[in-house]
Amino acid sequence: MSHKRRSVIKFASVPSNSVPTTQEREHSDLPSEIEPRSQDRRAFLRKSMAIAGTALASGTVGASVAQAALPIPESNTAFGRPIPETMYGMPSKFEAHVNRLRSNVLVNRQNFADWSMTPLQHQHGIITPNGLFFERHHTGIPDIDPAQHRLVIHGMVKNPLQFTMDDLMRYPSVSKFHFMECSGNGLTDWTKAASTTVQQSHGLLSCTQWTGIPLSWILDEVGLQPGAKWLLFEGADGSAHARSIPIEKCLNDALLVYAQGGEMLRPEQGYPLRAFMPGWEGNTSVKWLRRIKVSDQPWHLRSETARYTDPMPGGKWRQFSMEMECKSVITNPSGGQKLKGPGLYEIEGFAWSGRGTITAVDVTADGGRTWQQAQLEGPVLDKCLTRFRFRWNWTGGPAKIASRAVDSTGYVQPTVEEIAKVRALVGFVQHHNGIFPWLVNAAGEVKNDIA
Amino acid sequence: MSHKRRSVIKFASVPSNSVPTTQEREHSDLPSEIEPRSQDRRAFLRKSMAIAGTALASGTVGASVAQAALPIPESNTAFGRPIPETMYGMPSKFEAHVNRLRSNVLVNRQNFADWSMTPLQHQHGIITPNGLFFERHHTGIPDIDPAQHRLVIHGMVKNPLQFTMDDLMRYPSVSKFHFMECSGNGLTDWTKAASTTVQQSHGLLSCTQWTGIPLSWILDEVGLQPGAKWLLFEGADGSAHARSIPIEKCLNDALLVYAQGGEMLRPEQGYPLRAFMPGWEGNTSVKWLRRIKVSDQPWHLRSETARYTDPMPGGKWRQFSMEMECKSVITNPSGGQKLKGPGLYEIEGFAWSGRGTITAVDVTADGGRTWQQAQLEGPVLDKCLTRFRFRWNWTGGPAKIASRAVDSTGYVQPTVEEIAKVRALVGFVQHHNGIFPWLVNAAGEVKNDIA
Repeated sequence: MSHKRRSVIKFASVPSNSVPTTQEREHSDLPSEIEPRSQDRRAFLRKSMAIAGTALASGTVGASVAQAALPIPESNTAFGRPIPETMYGMPSKFEAHVNRLRSNVLVNRQNFADWSMTPLQHQHGIITPNGLFFERHHTGIPDIDPAQHRLVIHGMVKNPLQFTMDDLMRYPSVSKFHFMECSGNGLTDWTKAASTTVQQSHGLLSCTQWTGIPLSWILDEVGLQPGAKWLLFEGADGSAHARSIPIEKCLNDALLVYAQGGEMLRPEQGYPLRAFMPGWEGNTSVKWLRRIKVSDQPWHLRSETARYTDPMPGGKWRQFSMEMECKSVITNPSGGQKLKGPGLYEIEGFAWSGRGTITAVDVTADGGRTWQQAQLEGPVLDKCLTRFRFRWNWTGGPAKIASRAVDSTGYVQPTVEEIAKVRALVGFVQHHNGIFPWLVNAAGEVKNDIA
Repeated sequence: MSHKRRSVIKFASVPSNSVPTTQEREHSDLPSEIEPRSQDRRAFLRKSMAIAGTALASGTVGASVAQAALPIPESNTAFGRPIPETMYGMPSKFEAHVNRLRSNVLVNRQNFADWSMTPLQHQHGIITPNGLFFERHHTGIPDIDPAQHRLVIHGMVKNPLQFTMDDLMRYPSVSKFHFMECSGNGLTDWTKAASTTVQQSHGLLSCTQWTGIPLSWILDEVGLQPGAKWLLFEGADGSAHARSIPIEKCLNDALLVYAQGGEMLRPEQGYPLRAFMPGWEGNTSVKWLRRIKVSDQPWHLRSETARYTDPMPGGKWRQFSMEMECKSVITNPSGGQKLKGPGLYEIEGFAWSGRGTITAVDVTADGGRTWQQAQLEGPVLDKCLTRFRFRWNWTGGPAKIASRAVDSTGYVQPTVEEIAKVRALVGFVQHHNGIFPWLVNAAGEVKNDIA
């Protein structure tokens, strides 16, 4: 094909006389004077309140600017970094403060048992970055070679089988968006304000898209024997962490997962294989999964007696309460942040439920006396973080803000007092889904208001 | 509150006589014999074809296993790694092969102009990990301090304004799932099979959830003058990359974006601020955004004359064709992979359209003579990657596989011949959305079948 001389044809809506201000000229074609914008924004604020949903925060935001000409930034006049040889990208060095933290409230690092918490106050959207997904492990993080890893399924099955990772990845995959939460999330803040930030109080919570195989497919392969009712899931970590899971969950939506957030699991998330129990407490999604055994009853492991149980009224303890109930929390503004003076603010947070979708979130700014409905941002998905927003005019006095979620079963997130009453308060109390209050004081400082 | 003696209460469906096989005992409670599974799986295969959607790939997968007892993996008997001091997680060392690559087909690294491509054949779900998002830059990657960064909006506006990052992040945010594709994606494979893998042929494509501010809100703040029709977006990189965008897009769904995939933009994605034009070619989503100027006509920059234009029949060139048309590609099996013998395989891939949602994807395994409809995995979102799947029984002979997508406007992805005819073939031809064929040869090797 011959290369003909190119003649430019115009985009339909463009006048044909081009006025080519070149890129080079544009460089010096900067506004000779920029008006102070805080004034403009105040004007906008007054206007916007009356019209669309474009209202902005208070006029105190943004310094006044009045200068003769804007300087061209140095980055505009220099070569940037080339693509590095190590091609896996990392965040900007200016974002080093956005990171996971160990809890500084409750420390438990015997035998490499440890956890790290997601910086929810810095999370945008509903996807937790893979590098910031919370961790909880009982004996450190094994680095497993997927070529050596095997999954065995045995017990009350017709054909006990062993799978390599290649075997499992040969199956069709499914991908689902779901949150994961540790049952201990909020553990430190039942009766006193132990946590400073929402990362400390709620950071055992993350959300991503999970990819793997419905467990029911694999159970169909091995063939369940009559009377099969409980399945044991055991990890290949040093603690051989294990849980008993009822057959109904295994046949319903349980997954064998090898990827999250678009790539293979990170080592701390169970690489190369974990169970995933949508909507259930995190420890049931056994990491580094090496074995599933089928039985007619549960095992009553340490994780099911000494841990991961709920105290009940009358001194009894409830086992196998693995479904995470409806919950929400305000992430902005949240503990440790500071408001810059009275004005409009967007209250934002997450709501989620292990039983279905979020149908509503209410927000209070007066300690629960009055509630107003927040906006939910779509897509609103099953057993997935849902982001809510609520525009709030802070008049400057002390204000108690909190959110209250409702799920598709009609369940309404309880107050701390309500949930504490039925769950009693002894020992390590899991499953804190109470309405979490933040106090904005007159100086604009945001503090944990659990009392 | 007093600590009462705990007495275990049973889960409703559990018999009250507990048979506590302890975790320790479980360690040695392994199956004494595991039956060879390849045989079982063949049996399953025959069965599953008749019943549910659980069919598995051929019986050649997975080695036969027959051993007296399974060894306990070493990881089960040792402490794992503790959580590292640097808390930002990374993939397993066993996943080092899953990485971005520079193109080895077309090299252009003058003045740090470069690109890297996403390993689509290794992507799970629809979210591209932030570390594997494709890159394209014209003069390297600047490392911009967000505290120093400013966005200026001027030209035909009533109130030229300057924004700090704090100003912009004070606005309410919105988060949207959208793909991003470079208009040059597929550039090397119009008439000959230049690329070996789908990473090389289609890897200038990624997808994530973007967080920022609708541009229309900011334009409302500055106030457009009558006659405003085009906006210039200019980056703070060494090339001062810039594009002219029609006002309709700016008032419709254009975003000012500061986060993707849950965290602040990576430096190579425009940290701390970029434009985002949903569904439009990637270069219009100007990175390191420092300036927006409003005018009554476009600028006809180098990016709009010498580059990013489409040759048309008759020797003319089309400018401002920025919408990415409907497209799809099979990612598994794809170039460079090898099938392990005849049997059932899941064909998987991505479909997307800059004009709306994907409504259907057809798959052929006989070079386009017959087509069958693939399954789409939800959520199917606007201007977002959609994953499709199609179960395929490979009988072992040579097979030409390809996918064909349809979007919500009714547009059907064209063949390469069709799109080449209207787009002619001279110079750097952008916007290759032709149906992309892979050849599976008799040995099971998958090869690029563009001819």
